[in-house]
Formats: sequence, structure tokens, C-alpha cells
Amino acid sequence: MDLPVSPLAPKAFPALVPIKGVELFVGASGEYYKNRNDILLAVFAPTTQVAGVFTQSRCASAPVEWCRAHLKNHQARALLVNAGSANAFAGRRGDLATQQIATHTGEMLDCPPHEIMLAATGVIGEPLDPEPVLKVLAQITEKAPATALDAAKAIMTTDTYPKGSGASFTIDDEVVHIAGIAKGSGMIAPDMATMLSFVFTDMAIDGKILQSILAERIKTSFNAITVDSDTSTSDTCLVFATGSAKKYGVAPIISMQDARLPVFSRALDDVLFDLAMQVVRDGEGATKFVEISVSGAISDHSAQQIARSVANSPLVKTAISGEDANWGRVVMAVGKAGEPANRDLLTISFGDLIVARNGERSPDYDEKAASAYMKNQELEIRIDLGLGHGKGRIYTCDLSHGYISINGDYRS
Amino acid sequence: MDLPVSPLAPKAFPALVPIKGVELFVGASGEYYKNRNDILLAVFAPTTQVAGVFTQSRCASAPVEWCRAHLKNHQARALLVNAGSANAFAGRRGDLATQQIATHTGEMLDCPPHEIMLAATGVIGEPLDPEPVLKVLAQITEKAPATALDAAKAIMTTDTYPKGSGASFTIDDEVVHIAGIAKGSGMIAPDMATMLSFVFTDMAIDGKILQSILAERIKTSFNAITVDSDTSTSDTCLVFATGSAKKYGVAPIISMQDARLPVFSRALDDVLFDLAMQVVRDGEGATKFVEISVSGAISDHSAQQIARSVANSPLVKTAISGEDANWGRVVMAVGKAGEPANRDLLTISFGDLIVARNGERSPDYDEKAASAYMKNQELEIRIDLGLGHGKGRIYTCDLSHGYISINGDYRS
Repeated sequence: MDLPVSPLAPKAFPALVPIKGVELFVGASGEYYKNRNDILLAVFAPTTQVAGVFTQSRCASAPVEWCRAHLKNHQARALLVNAGSANAFAGRRGDLATQQIATHTGEMLDCPPHEIMLAATGVIGEPLDPEPVLKVLAQITEKAPATALDAAKAIMTTDTYPKGSGASFTIDDEVVHIAGIAKGSGMIAPDMATMLSFVFTDMAIDGKILQSILAERIKTSFNAITVDSDTSTSDTCLVFATGSAKKYGVAPIISMQDARLPVFSRALDDVLFDLAMQVVRDGEGATKFVEISVSGAISDHSAQQIARSVANSPLVKTAISGEDANWGRVVMAVGKAGEPANRDLLTISFGDLIVARNGERSPDYDEKAASAYMKNQELEIRIDLGLGHGKGRIYTCDLSHGYISINGDYRS
Repeated sequence: MDLPVSPLAPKAFPALVPIKGVELFVGASGEYYKNRNDILLAVFAPTTQVAGVFTQSRCASAPVEWCRAHLKNHQARALLVNAGSANAFAGRRGDLATQQIATHTGEMLDCPPHEIMLAATGVIGEPLDPEPVLKVLAQITEKAPATALDAAKAIMTTDTYPKGSGASFTIDDEVVHIAGIAKGSGMIAPDMATMLSFVFTDMAIDGKILQSILAERIKTSFNAITVDSDTSTSDTCLVFATGSAKKYGVAPIISMQDARLPVFSRALDDVLFDLAMQVVRDGEGATKFVEISVSGAISDHSAQQIARSVANSPLVKTAISGEDANWGRVVMAVGKAGEPANRDLLTISFGDLIVARNGERSPDYDEKAASAYMKNQELEIRIDLGLGHGKGRIYTCDLSHGYISINGDYRS
């Protein structure tokens, strides 16, 4: 089916600077989609460092297991992504397909297969046939290199728009760049990363340090979003640092104490956060973008659990879709989170409107004002528990007829 | 809005034997509904024993907190239920309303207020005005006693049909009866009980023993159902044993070793299970009744968690609604449960059709047969993990446009 572009989509794909040390190629296998690219190959300069985080699913896809096994030494020469089949729950045939593809790509690029990172997205349970992928691969580098926009389009499935984000920053008086792409729309409740996100930078940085920043920064970006509480088998976020910036005078970061690390880290954070928000904004059937902020919990973890419980509640999400200021359902979702909460200390606000405090409807509650607020496309629900200093934040969208249509009315 | 009766509804309300020692009365406050009863009073013979289980919500309603505080001595003279306002998150005013209602009912029946059990269901956050309830109470016992059907109707909210179940069994050569009613349709993911369920029996049994059987039997009935993963603030299941059977020669059960206990316990179980299934069958927007059975898990608890993860997955539920044999989403939901699972040992069946085994699509998978199976109104999804002997079972319904309409399109 052809889906209309999400009403929450950004106006345009951002202008992304090509990253030195990264060559992008796209191709069409014709297997799952007609008239569009579904294969992405990114070739990296030698000694490119990679860091990655993956789904916590116990039924992870073959490409996720492949990356997890081979990420240890943080070396990557290429990334190969296919859209249409997730190559998840495809048994030994799935494992074999990943091996064949990695081996073939490694031979092409004259590197060991374990330096090839793999990702796949699409239907679960369909075994991936490696032949069409290998056929595309054989000719892909003969074509003109692709842009980040081409790359972002090649990895889409039920996405209604391509997702990209970039940042530039100055280190050692030189300008260094980050460019990232992502895909994801349904089955979004990342437990370590989103469906798929790939970030490239010419920064020179040790892979272990890159890994530790990524693990930290993912918490407030991809791990702080949910569309439908369903964690994918394929969630993958990989960051590749080509180190090409060394050539124009940027010294590599090889210590966590390096004073330049926060500059890079902040820029990376901006890109990860922007991409994560673009995934929420393309949530299946989404008509509202919602930020759930929790404060006053006994710990940050507890606050995040409560925010997630509210963000995942079908009753809260359908009320938002119906523009109903139904804060009673927010109370319900706080109550079911299983985290410490005291009814009589709870304060709930919709935007700046305090709707409930001290365990009951606020005395100055104005139904008209609350209903008017719900008509906004961007909403904030704030919950203060009055117990401690724990804070948390989750970004989500509403649950509308669109979600049911996309996932129930058609075979996907 | 007027909802059509669920397509999964039983053909008729069962014929329930009036329970000796229970008098039912219903009345209309006119506060929340027009032309229907919304108040239920059940008056019990002196020395009636009561057992109860309640929601695990941290924001439980005032009536739940009242019952929990006063259930300790297992004595009950009456039960008062109102529909329309849940009296949840209504602060001190809510607590005060429960106190006033209990005190007033106690005075009416010449018993201490703590022998009055209370329950309420409806909108959360609306403070309950006790006056209209007290006004109805003042005249309610002057009316003709009500039937179980009248009682079941008086406690409905978004329910599309009244729910009742009964059982009869022989103890000490005498026939003893159980009659139960329940309500619930949305916000159903009980953590100790359903929305509201009240079960009456003339059996003579000690309250502590009754409590321990109820706690056990609830696990495979009300605690094994989910409609939308949203746990209510008001979940309450109370069982009242009037002991009237003593009069016609049934000796009271006062020991857990009593050989007659299993007879009563099995009959109680039948009623609780039947009522729980009726709640699922009235799930908001439900078009399919689904049983999720898990075997081969490392423990029963683990199996139940996995079954619950599948039953609560929006993607699994929308696929069922769309009659799509999308077993890949079942794999996803097994994977996200956070419980031990090994992809390569997993077997998934839809009814008797094995769709996946050994970590991939079954070699004899027949898409046509699987799609035909999904057209049934009653479905079974069976998952074997191949790890141990743990078993679990959850009953649920699909997620359809009806759920969105009921909860999003209209203010509730």
C-alpha cells in the first residue's frame, strides 16, 4: 500500500556534508519492491572504527547476531543493508545468508568478512535469499556513488519519509562532520537502539571510546522513544568513524579524558536525538508527537519506567488521538507502572495547564482550556511524583485508526 | 455512544439460582446514565464471610483502598457498587465519599461500616458525589429484590452485555450454589483481579480459607486475561459465602485439609474462569477470541510472561484483527518478553498448523491453510520453547478499529 507522508514529518531532508572516508552505493534487487533501491553499501577507509548497539530481543535477527559477534575489535571496512526481509527467524539458512554476503563483500573489498557489518529490515520469518543481493553487489560499485538521501531511501520499509541528520563541529581548528540516517515506523520500542540507524563521521576516535559514548548517548535518544511497545528483532545503531580528519590535522581521540571528547560527543548526541525524533514522527498512523516528562520519582530509572508506561498505554494513546484531555488514563498508567507513586503527591500537567494535583483534579482545572490544548500537533504531558529527584523522558506518538489500517487491514 | 453487542458474546445470560443469604437491590441515581440502574446493593446474612483480591495499581481507587483495609476479618454484611464514576484519583474527597456511603449503609443495616464492601467503576478523576448514592440507598430496599441479571446490568460501563456465571455442587448430600457477576471491557490487564467481579455462594466456609482458594484460583482466571495491557485503578474481585447452607445440613469448612474443599474450590474455579472469559469476549472492539498457550519454558512464571508479551503486542493483535497469519510478529513478541528463549528450539502453531519450528518457517508451511485458519472467530496460538517444562496460558482478543473508535473517537 502507498502511505501518505506523516503529518509530523520534517519539511525536508537535511543537507548533509559527504563524510570523508565513506563511499555510499545503492542498488535494486527487485525482490521485495518495484522501482526502488533496496540495497545500501557503505565502503569505509581502512582503519575505520565502529561502535554499535543492538536489540535486546531474545530472537534477534541473523545480521544482529553477526554484528554483535564481529564488533569486538571495532574495525569495519563496509556496511551492507537490505530492505524487504529482516532475515530474522530464518534459522540456519538465515545465518548462512549473512555469512555468504559478508564473505562475498569482503572478497570484493579485499578484507576479512568480519570487517563487514550487516543489517536487514522487513518481514520476519522470510528466509533471505542471498543470490539477488550478491548479484546487485557485483555491479554496485561501478555505479555513481550515492548521496545520504539515496542511502536513507534505500533502507525504508513502512517509513513515509527518509530520515537524516548531520552536525559539524570544530576540533583542533578543523571542521569535522557527522552524517546519520535512520529508518523505522512500527515495531518501535527500542531496547538498545532503533530499527536501523547508521551514523558516519570523519572524526578520528578509538573504537572502544566511541562504543562507550554511544552506549551513553543512546539512552536519551533511541532508547527514549516508543511507537507501539513492540521491540524489533532487528534494532541496530552503528556509528562509523573513518578517521579521515587525521589527514587534515585532527589528532585522534584515544583517551576518555581527552578535553575534545565532549565536543564530539555533544555533536553525536544531536544527530542521534534528531534521528530518533524523526522515527517517532513517522510512527505508524501517527497524528500527534508527544513528550512524556516525569520528575520527582525515587530515581531516574523509576521515572523512565513510569514515562514508558504512560507512553505505551493504548488508552492514553487513543485519548491523545481523539484529542481528549483524559488525564485519568495518565493516572491509570502511572499506577500500573509498578514503580513507587503516592496518589496524594501526584501532579499532572498538559503543557502548562496543571490538570491534577494533590491526588485529585486541580481546583482551577479548565476543561475548555485542556481540550483546546489537545488540538495541538505537539503535546507535552508532565508528571511530578513528589517523592524524590528522579527524572525521565520518553517521546511517543498517538494510536490512531492509521496504525490499525497499516498493521491489520493489509498483509505486511 | 451505543455500542453493538460484541460478536463474541455468549448467546444468553445464564439461569442463576438465587443464593440463600443474599438479597440484591438495584437503583438509578440518574447521575451518569439515563434510563438505567447504576447502583447495586447486595445484603448478606449475618456472619457472611468475604474474600477479595484487588488491583496492584499504585493509584488504586478509594473503594479498593477501603475494601483492602476492612477485609482483614473477612466479615461482610453488604456490598455497594456504583457505575459511572470510579471514585479513583479523587483525593480526600474520594476517601470521604466512601466513608459516608459505608457509614450510611452500615446504619441502615445495623452493622459497623467496616462490614460494608464498596466498589465503583467509570471515569477516573471525577470525584464521586455521595448524595445521589445516599438518596438511592434510602429507598432501595423498599423495592422488589433484583435478580442476578439486574445486578449484572447495573454495574456495566462500556460493556456490551451483562456477564454472569453459576455452578451447583453436592456437599454433605446437599446441593450448594455459586452465582457470580462481572463487568469489564477496556482497561483490562488485571494484576490481581478483573475490573469488577462479585461471586456469591451459600456455602459455609471460613473467610481465611476462602481467601486462600481465591488467591490461587484467580491466577488462571482473571489474572490470565488481557484486553489492552492497561491495568485498572479499580480491579476488584470479591467472593461472599453466606453460610446459609448450614441451615440445611452442610457443615462449615474450617480446615484446609477438609476433603470437601476441592469440590467447592473446583466449582468456584468454574465460575471465575467463565466470568473472566466473558470479560475477554467483551473486550473493546473485539472480533476474535484468542488463547495463547506457552509450553517448554524454563518455568511456569516465564511461560506466563511470554504468553502475556504475545497477548499484549499491538502488532500481533492487529495482525489477528486483519486475519493475517503473521507468525513473525509472534516471534518478535517472544523475543521482547525478556525471558529465556532459544530461536532454534522454538515451535509456533496456529491451531493444529505448525507454522514454524527449529528457528525457521516450517518446511510444510501452507500459507493458504494458515490464512484460512485465521478466519475463525476463536483462535489458538501455541508456542513451545523447547527449554523446560514451564507452562502458561493467557486469553485475549484482537486490536481493531473498534478499540480506537471506542477510546479515541468519543470522549469517555
